[in-house]
Amino acid sequence: MNAEQAVAELKARDREIYLLNHCSAILGWDQETYLPEKGVDERAEQLAFLRKLNHERETDPAVADLLASAGADDGNPMGVASLPPLDRAFLRVRWRDYQHATRLPTELVVKIASVTSKARSAWVDARRDSSFKKFQPHLEEIVELLLEVADRLGYVDHPYDALLDQYEPWAKTAEITAVFDDLRARLVPLVRRICDAPPIDASFLSGKFPVDKQRAFSERVLAKLGFETGRGRLDVSEHPFTTTLGLDDVRITTRFNEQFFNSAVFGTIHEAGHAFYEMGFNRDFAGTRLADSISLGIHESQSRFWENVVGRGRAFWSHFYPALRDQFPERLGSVSEEEFYRAINIVEPSLIRVEADEVTYCLHIILRFNLEKALVSRALSVKDLPEAWREQSREMLGVVPETEADGVLQDIHWSMGAFGYFPTYALGNLYAAQFTTALKSDIPDFDAKIGAGEFAPILSWLRSKIHLHGNSKTANELCEDITGSSLSSDFFVEYLTEKYTDVYGLR
Amino acid sequence: MNAEQAVAELKARDREIYLLNHCSAILGWDQETYLPEKGVDERAEQLAFLRKLNHERETDPAVADLLASAGADDGNPMGVASLPPLDRAFLRVRWRDYQHATRLPTELVVKIASVTSKARSAWVDARRDSSFKKFQPHLEEIVELLLEVADRLGYVDHPYDALLDQYEPWAKTAEITAVFDDLRARLVPLVRRICDAPPIDASFLSGKFPVDKQRAFSERVLAKLGFETGRGRLDVSEHPFTTTLGLDDVRITTRFNEQFFNSAVFGTIHEAGHAFYEMGFNRDFAGTRLADSISLGIHESQSRFWENVVGRGRAFWSHFYPALRDQFPERLGSVSEEEFYRAINIVEPSLIRVEADEVTYCLHIILRFNLEKALVSRALSVKDLPEAWREQSREMLGVVPETEADGVLQDIHWSMGAFGYFPTYALGNLYAAQFTTALKSDIPDFDAKIGAGEFAPILSWLRSKIHLHGNSKTANELCEDITGSSLSSDFFVEYLTEKYTDVYGLR
Repeated sequence: MNAEQAVAELKARDREIYLLNHCSAILGWDQETYLPEKGVDERAEQLAFLRKLNHERETDPAVADLLASAGADDGNPMGVASLPPLDRAFLRVRWRDYQHATRLPTELVVKIASVTSKARSAWVDARRDSSFKKFQPHLEEIVELLLEVADRLGYVDHPYDALLDQYEPWAKTAEITAVFDDLRARLVPLVRRICDAPPIDASFLSGKFPVDKQRAFSERVLAKLGFETGRGRLDVSEHPFTTTLGLDDVRITTRFNEQFFNSAVFGTIHEAGHAFYEMGFNRDFAGTRLADSISLGIHESQSRFWENVVGRGRAFWSHFYPALRDQFPERLGSVSEEEFYRAINIVEPSLIRVEADEVTYCLHIILRFNLEKALVSRALSVKDLPEAWREQSREMLGVVPETEADGVLQDIHWSMGAFGYFPTYALGNLYAAQFTTALKSDIPDFDAKIGAGEFAPILSWLRSKIHLHGNSKTANELCEDITGSSLSSDFFVEYLTEKYTDVYGLR
Repeated sequence: MNAEQAVAELKARDREIYLLNHCSAILGWDQETYLPEKGVDERAEQLAFLRKLNHERETDPAVADLLASAGADDGNPMGVASLPPLDRAFLRVRWRDYQHATRLPTELVVKIASVTSKARSAWVDARRDSSFKKFQPHLEEIVELLLEVADRLGYVDHPYDALLDQYEPWAKTAEITAVFDDLRARLVPLVRRICDAPPIDASFLSGKFPVDKQRAFSERVLAKLGFETGRGRLDVSEHPFTTTLGLDDVRITTRFNEQFFNSAVFGTIHEAGHAFYEMGFNRDFAGTRLADSISLGIHESQSRFWENVVGRGRAFWSHFYPALRDQFPERLGSVSEEEFYRAINIVEPSLIRVEADEVTYCLHIILRFNLEKALVSRALSVKDLPEAWREQSREMLGVVPETEADGVLQDIHWSMGAFGYFPTYALGNLYAAQFTTALKSDIPDFDAKIGAGEFAPILSWLRSKIHLHGNSKTANELCEDITGSSLSSDFFVEYLTEKYTDVYGLR
């Protein structure tokens, strides 16, 4: 079998995996939205069964033979040079996924599932009692298992590379460390300057915002942004998410808090950003794993772009605020557009990551990234984690949690063994800012377009530059193709400095 | 391998089929309720893929070997006599399903799919233009294909036996003909007597019934009947249905017509009857095909029982009417309970089956049953079908359709090749009445219980006598176990005669 035939066969085999992934997504979506309470157990069995069918196909030894026939191996995952570029890009992803799916022995996967399952409930208890001690032995076991995972997956420089690569393919710890160190060095003084400025009043964002009106407003925003309801839906779930159930079926969820305006609207815009990405893959990729996102970081760049760069921008609200005020006259009737704009951009160093603003958010991430790296390199032992957390929090955010529940125990990720996941959130912000610079140079009247409610040119730019390429580029290739350089914190720092100098009247 | 081991292996293999069936049900449910418009094409692909996975498992040649090891064959589908009765019942179903899945060659199945797909759109056009001629060549092709299906599936007495058996396992054309002939002979004079009685006013059931109030009332009824919301849901779809997505996940749908009261409430009660059945299988059967209904006829007996025997009964409304009148004071404020009860039981020979009352309904079915049999035995040719329809309609219902759209073209079933399906609707009415006689002898204060809103003893009787047994009995075995005799039209005729003598003040 020659390389072309091997690629064709691998693509044909992708079709069943593609359909199974979407079937699982349908079951998963239903589970978070409409599943009756007692249906949970069998749903877990159904999902496990589909996962098994998928795993059989992902790890079929015939795939290894086909990859070999196409010339894809450790030293050259893209296969023989004579293949068309998109086929080589496909091989690179297929090769990588095969390694990830086959390098961990089944016993290790089962062990991790069992340990993290217990760790998750231990974490719930520990957090409730604000007692890290209850979680410590579980986390110690997880760190040991993750070191074995790293060994099995393989790495050159740092065991954390192997873990990070699961969520941010091809990313390297050293590169991210350099970017984050630089970011931190410039963010901390910016946060200080903001904290020294007169505080902003955002009290009117709390109070009664009737859910049906929030929903109507969210749907209005979605429609205006270009969310195609013939190809997607908005539903309600406890934790907002985006999921792809089919080529033309991408669904988002949000959650409504009657007492706080921000949750639903900004959550909806955030998820819409994810959905636009999933809706925009080249249709020629359908049925193969090229019809997928590049990484969590790039995915997050799309949600953060729409939520923060667009949705928390002045131009956005110059377009939407009059309609919003009409919807909620009791809360916003006497609030000016400027007051509203400043309030939704309030910056406050706080303890809890998920409530953080866009300036301090990355500091929460860098803190976790540093601790994860230290644990994995054995520079820090699990028992010393709470103290290390407090120290870093003091240094970076200037606040120290009084309880472990508000500190080291606040996130679920570690109990799931998801080391390497956190950095992708910050990468999203950085990529979003870097892409925005390129976008604005192509669309110089960016703000005027948004102010006029014309989002189509922006979405169309993202489609052609990012979405369309699916998983055919690496994050770094994409970034260089669009911006001419690798990831840098410059763009994000510049974006924040300019925006918050204005919002807080700094200088 | 001995017979016990073979049964155990067949049951183990059933587990994946069981999970796949539920996965398909989830996709199907979503398709009818929430699927975005453009997601339809890939959903069809996803469902076809799951069907393929299922078919591979249903028709695996290893199943034939296992059935043989268990001693199950044409002459003895229940396997060796030494097996426990429930294992023999399981073998009987497994054997039967294997025959159905393997006796039709793939080319024939593909041909039928292609022909019926074209026939369905031809039927839509023919019905719109009220022109049977446009549908005739398609139906001719379908009849020929169905004769081949009958030959392949096999039959002893009548080719219609083979078709009927697809929907009503083990039923025989000759037996149903005897029952239906008898039923018809007694229904026609009853309908005449009713038509000669003074008409009933039901005009107040049309008019404005706000949808949200209909929904609230339907949910109240569901809760009172014992529908467990932790194990099911009520949603809206164009065509109401019940579907099982898991052991503890049975969902029903209804449709709301703001201008007509009956649709949503009686539709909901009808589907709840189906759902109770699906929710009531013995949990020991879970994961095998014994956790299934016996036949469409028995399924329909459960929906008709709740809809008609209970839901259109006097006792039911003596309990619910005061609350209903409070909900719709403008429409029902001046309508007495007696007037309402008579109105929801109005009898009017009409042209359209789906709008028929419970007295004339079976005549619509017998008409179709007779025509299907005649077509399949070549006693009637397709071109003569419209005239045969008019004749039978005149004889049985006393009305003749002026257009073919209101006559021979009214149902979708024939365009789908679903010959043998119609009789199951009437069988549902007959079984429901026959079971009710037994139920009332066990629960003599049946009406008093309903009047007091106590439905639990009734549901519990159905559970233990019918639902619990899943697919471990044939319809005939079930009927004999419960009522001491085979299916007869006596019980249904007696039920109708008693009820409508009262409703219409006959005699």
